[in-house]
Amino acid sequence: MEITELQLPYSAADRGWLRYEPRDSLQGLPVWSRIFVSEWSDTLEAAVRELRYGIREMSGQSPEIVVGGESLAQGAFIRCATVRESLPNELHSDLLLQDLNEDGYLLKHVADKENGGCLYIVGRTDKGILYGAFHLLRLLQMEVPAERIDLVENPRNPLRMMNHWDNMDGSIERGYAGRSIFFKDQRLIEDDGRIRDYARLMASIGINGISINNVNVHEAEARLITAEYLPQVARVAGIFSAYGIRLFLSINYASPMQLGGLATADPLDSGVRQWWKEKAVEIYRYIPDFGGFVVKADSEHRPGPFTYNRTHADGSNMLAEALAPYGGVVIWRCFVYNCMQDWRDRTTDRARAAYDHFKPLDGQFRDNVILQIKNGPMDFQVREAVSPLLGAMPQTNQMLEFQITQEYTGQQKHLCYLVPQWKDVLDFDTYARGEGSTIQRVASGELYDYKHCGITAVINVGDDENWTGHTLAQANLYGYGRLAWNPDLSEAEITEEWIKQTFGTHAAVVEQLTTMLAESWRIYENYTSPLGVGWMVNPGHHYGPNVDGYEYSVWGTYHFADCHGMGVNRTVKDGTGYTGQYFAENAERYESLDSCPDELLLFFHHVPYTHRLHSGKTVIQHIYDSHFEGADGVEALIERWRLLEGLVDPKRHEAVMGRLRHQAEHSKEWRDIINTYFYRKSGIGDELKRMIY
Amino acid sequence: MEITELQLPYSAADRGWLRYEPRDSLQGLPVWSRIFVSEWSDTLEAAVRELRYGIREMSGQSPEIVVGGESLAQGAFIRCATVRESLPNELHSDLLLQDLNEDGYLLKHVADKENGGCLYIVGRTDKGILYGAFHLLRLLQMEVPAERIDLVENPRNPLRMMNHWDNMDGSIERGYAGRSIFFKDQRLIEDDGRIRDYARLMASIGINGISINNVNVHEAEARLITAEYLPQVARVAGIFSAYGIRLFLSINYASPMQLGGLATADPLDSGVRQWWKEKAVEIYRYIPDFGGFVVKADSEHRPGPFTYNRTHADGSNMLAEALAPYGGVVIWRCFVYNCMQDWRDRTTDRARAAYDHFKPLDGQFRDNVILQIKNGPMDFQVREAVSPLLGAMPQTNQMLEFQITQEYTGQQKHLCYLVPQWKDVLDFDTYARGEGSTIQRVASGELYDYKHCGITAVINVGDDENWTGHTLAQANLYGYGRLAWNPDLSEAEITEEWIKQTFGTHAAVVEQLTTMLAESWRIYENYTSPLGVGWMVNPGHHYGPNVDGYEYSVWGTYHFADCHGMGVNRTVKDGTGYTGQYFAENAERYESLDSCPDELLLFFHHVPYTHRLHSGKTVIQHIYDSHFEGADGVEALIERWRLLEGLVDPKRHEAVMGRLRHQAEHSKEWRDIINTYFYRKSGIGDELKRMIY
Repeated sequence: MEITELQLPYSAADRGWLRYEPRDSLQGLPVWSRIFVSEWSDTLEAAVRELRYGIREMSGQSPEIVVGGESLAQGAFIRCATVRESLPNELHSDLLLQDLNEDGYLLKHVADKENGGCLYIVGRTDKGILYGAFHLLRLLQMEVPAERIDLVENPRNPLRMMNHWDNMDGSIERGYAGRSIFFKDQRLIEDDGRIRDYARLMASIGINGISINNVNVHEAEARLITAEYLPQVARVAGIFSAYGIRLFLSINYASPMQLGGLATADPLDSGVRQWWKEKAVEIYRYIPDFGGFVVKADSEHRPGPFTYNRTHADGSNMLAEALAPYGGVVIWRCFVYNCMQDWRDRTTDRARAAYDHFKPLDGQFRDNVILQIKNGPMDFQVREAVSPLLGAMPQTNQMLEFQITQEYTGQQKHLCYLVPQWKDVLDFDTYARGEGSTIQRVASGELYDYKHCGITAVINVGDDENWTGHTLAQANLYGYGRLAWNPDLSEAEITEEWIKQTFGTHAAVVEQLTTMLAESWRIYENYTSPLGVGWMVNPGHHYGPNVDGYEYSVWGTYHFADCHGMGVNRTVKDGTGYTGQYFAENAERYESLDSCPDELLLFFHHVPYTHRLHSGKTVIQHIYDSHFEGADGVEALIERWRLLEGLVDPKRHEAVMGRLRHQAEHSKEWRDIINTYFYRKSGIGDELKRMIY
Repeated sequence: MEITELQLPYSAADRGWLRYEPRDSLQGLPVWSRIFVSEWSDTLEAAVRELRYGIREMSGQSPEIVVGGESLAQGAFIRCATVRESLPNELHSDLLLQDLNEDGYLLKHVADKENGGCLYIVGRTDKGILYGAFHLLRLLQMEVPAERIDLVENPRNPLRMMNHWDNMDGSIERGYAGRSIFFKDQRLIEDDGRIRDYARLMASIGINGISINNVNVHEAEARLITAEYLPQVARVAGIFSAYGIRLFLSINYASPMQLGGLATADPLDSGVRQWWKEKAVEIYRYIPDFGGFVVKADSEHRPGPFTYNRTHADGSNMLAEALAPYGGVVIWRCFVYNCMQDWRDRTTDRARAAYDHFKPLDGQFRDNVILQIKNGPMDFQVREAVSPLLGAMPQTNQMLEFQITQEYTGQQKHLCYLVPQWKDVLDFDTYARGEGSTIQRVASGELYDYKHCGITAVINVGDDENWTGHTLAQANLYGYGRLAWNPDLSEAEITEEWIKQTFGTHAAVVEQLTTMLAESWRIYENYTSPLGVGWMVNPGHHYGPNVDGYEYSVWGTYHFADCHGMGVNRTVKDGTGYTGQYFAENAERYESLDSCPDELLLFFHHVPYTHRLHSGKTVIQHIYDSHFEGADGVEALIERWRLLEGLVDPKRHEAVMGRLRHQAEHSKEWRDIINTYFYRKSGIGDELKRMIY
């Protein structure tokens, strides 16, 4: 049996890192003439189709796909198999095969004296084979010699998710790359091409769960779980399913009222419980592998169990009970805080909120509830402390939430590679069970015995041709997926993979782009809000500098700058007590000015402008210096990118250069506004007498 | 001939000041049994219909309307006549009749021995009679005894206009009272009732020109001057026409390109000139009494003659030439400034812009061009200097522009009676031709011999039931019209008229409301931006406090506050030189700290917070005191309004109370944010140790 020759990619969108440009290492040489696969499934079809396509594009030669046939063919071949099949001794004897988990795979070159060098992709499941196929293609794009391939991979995180904040009118909350790829005019988009290519991109980095609608579930989106929309949702779920991805939906907690006409949404009300049970039956009838619900409840004016004097545990358990028979989970967001705070009140601290709300409930959640916790206690700032809730609930499934979409980090107009930030978070030691209790071990379930856990992120894609607005923002999308798969990967490894796949293996390209990406986060941090204090952006859309933008607001996001100093006193001694939410080692480190790291100084302390940092600089001089450095850093990015003219295709080169030029202008605006604000406020001049207004 | 009994009012909207509630002074007594009118016209019909309706509502008795009949009827009557008719000697001998201008009228009680007390309304034109009829109804509503009526009125301003900033999608730029009464879904609204009632309200205060669309003329609105829309526009113009109002349209300067497909809109291009001439022919074919064009050109990204290196004179004269044959005028706005200013640049001063642009062009404009000049050089702030351009162009028609819609003065959620502000402006002495060269004499054409001139204002009405959102904001609408008619009217006179017509003549109502209105502007000023510096509002929508909201923007609107002091140095000595745009007496007064009035101190000078005002207070203490006083003042407004419970109908009482309560809350937010901002910035505490955060 030969599979139909389908056209890949499915849409005219940018190919991202699945670019498969011709590779010298594969050109002109005989490659694998056949791809064997013994069984058949949508997922295996996806795998072998991708393999054939990728190899043909890179080598110019198209392997034949053979289903269920003898693998003793003439010439080199690739064989896709599950561990249940009979395999060459070299593989069977491989003890590592025993360790493959659901999504794991073995990828191995076997020198066959009759057929030459053959490649085996062995998974415990078809999904494992799919991931292995993408891994092989990655290595080939990177020009890794096939004969060196010998590896076993298991994803570290059971759940590796993407959260879309897409609305059914096609808009995307915090979207900076066009409109939704799923929704338009209150319907699901019927052209599946883009969604298929999206599923390929996601599967290639190991994503296995995607929620397709905004966590702020409005009127229309609430109806996605009704018969009106479920057939359309099921169609998308089917596309995902072939790529090993389960579809999730964000739901409105008040659905029993809005959709069911009940008088209450009280989670302890038997009618409400029954309504959700019946709703689960209905959903799984349409989507047998439905992942579950993502829920933002009692947060930023969203409905939730608080209305009925119930807890988050009551609220989530009720939904979890309904989904349990089908293996579904409830992903309950911990982004709960008082969003109508009085700015005059310095005792309330938004940073405390998630811990204060959820920590006391540890042990009260069903085992198919997962608490989804943002990496920091505030909201995806360029720099903030790690959330003390992560690791603080041994008896409750937890999941880490990142933000790939650059809401506060330049909105994909500025280059800001977030992998270094995420690495910092993943490697942060909570000391929850002594040294080495890192965030990545919390999320992966290694630290505590979580039934469900993992990492999720708010995605940065839209219907822009290049998916992410800024072409280089694809690196964040890629990097996130890779870290969700294996948080131990180094920034350097991830960056090299992405560059080589996306822009080729030319040494100058790799060198310049690696440096650009590596420096970009610090550059962005330098010209925006200083020393971990955060915010200082225009309210609402969050783009561009506005030092007092959130200072007198209801959002709990303040810097308290006056003519003497600035920063938020979150100490136990005489502040909000937030530092006390950490385990002792961190609590002590942050509590003391002596040990608090410079980059988080103003997150934890209110200090005079003349306070001297560990760096030796005063706070005010640090502000000036870092802002001049930041804007200069963007000019350096431009210089590096200019070097790649001719080495990167003109279309992408010009597009990126255009964004960098805007970033350069905008970074000067940031620099001058922040510096001028603090110069006017402090009255302290720049030691280097640079121009401040 | 008897006129049809039409239902007044035409719509279910609030009646405003045309309320005609039963009046004790007219109840139970015999009133005028007939209204005589010798000729007939739409305007006379409007006049006598209003008279009959008003008298019936107030007295319970309905006069008969007699057209062309003998006025020697039995019993008291009202006679409407023009000066051309034969009138009793007592009137003919009245020398004042000779002085009636186009819109003037005589209103006189004549004791007739046969018929009792009769009233004569004599105008030079039908319009004069219409205005006289409304005047009579006003006096009756105010319970002025009929026998005391003996007056001659001429409007002081030839043009008494309203500018709508309505868009064809129904939105209103800077509208705070619902949607447009003219437009919806890109069409003119077909139900005329609301427009007729609006025309009645406008005629009752003497308005004789109305532009119905936004000065920012977008794609759709540009087409109002095409055959697609002119029939609909003509219908509205016809309604207005009966009420003595000429309709104007705002036009897009680039119309020859957008509508005509020409390659240019150059005012010196013969094809462009021809296009506008033909356009004028077409417009006047539909609307014979079309007023003319209102033009915002080369301002805030609107197209204009600058594109072609032509002047505002070139641009406006070209349009004026096209309209001249039909008596149309071009109203050319002087709100022209650099709206892409670099905030770092302290040499450019937006306040200078109108004068710098237009003063050099004096004498170059056709006599049917009028320059429309905002009262202040910035943009309708709660307090700003008077525009130095007013009175500075002896050879160029000028027109004064006010803003009734409360863009910067509380958006009709806050009570802010603007008549006191407008009086200040109208009575401001420019010294253009020596002492007494007041703004009102500039606008009215008394100072220079203007062919066209007057006053216009951006209106505050929408389709809210009560027209203006805040019921008490009707007082601004009313007061503006009365001042446009007669700028010598005192605030007290206008306020009394409005209250008695709108809320009745009860002494407590008049007393409390008079005080509320009189104090409201100062109260609002107190808790918002201090000492004439302006701005400090949230950008874009302009509601609520944001001290730095415009500080680092492109709009040329800064306060330059630092830890030492604040204000804009506009002196000739070492500032922007703006003070030099005034005639000597004012230039000297504003230039010197000794003579600059406190309320404009920060508009003209940058001073330390410790600078002592003429009031004896330091600037910083003034900020604190005025802000506490302002918020306290709103509480006092509430107390006064509470006294009127039972004296004002519950519906309007509750609606106003609701707005006042919001104002009270919001004024505290203003108070605390402004005070905190300056406390944090200056480090100087409040002498009275009140709570600042």
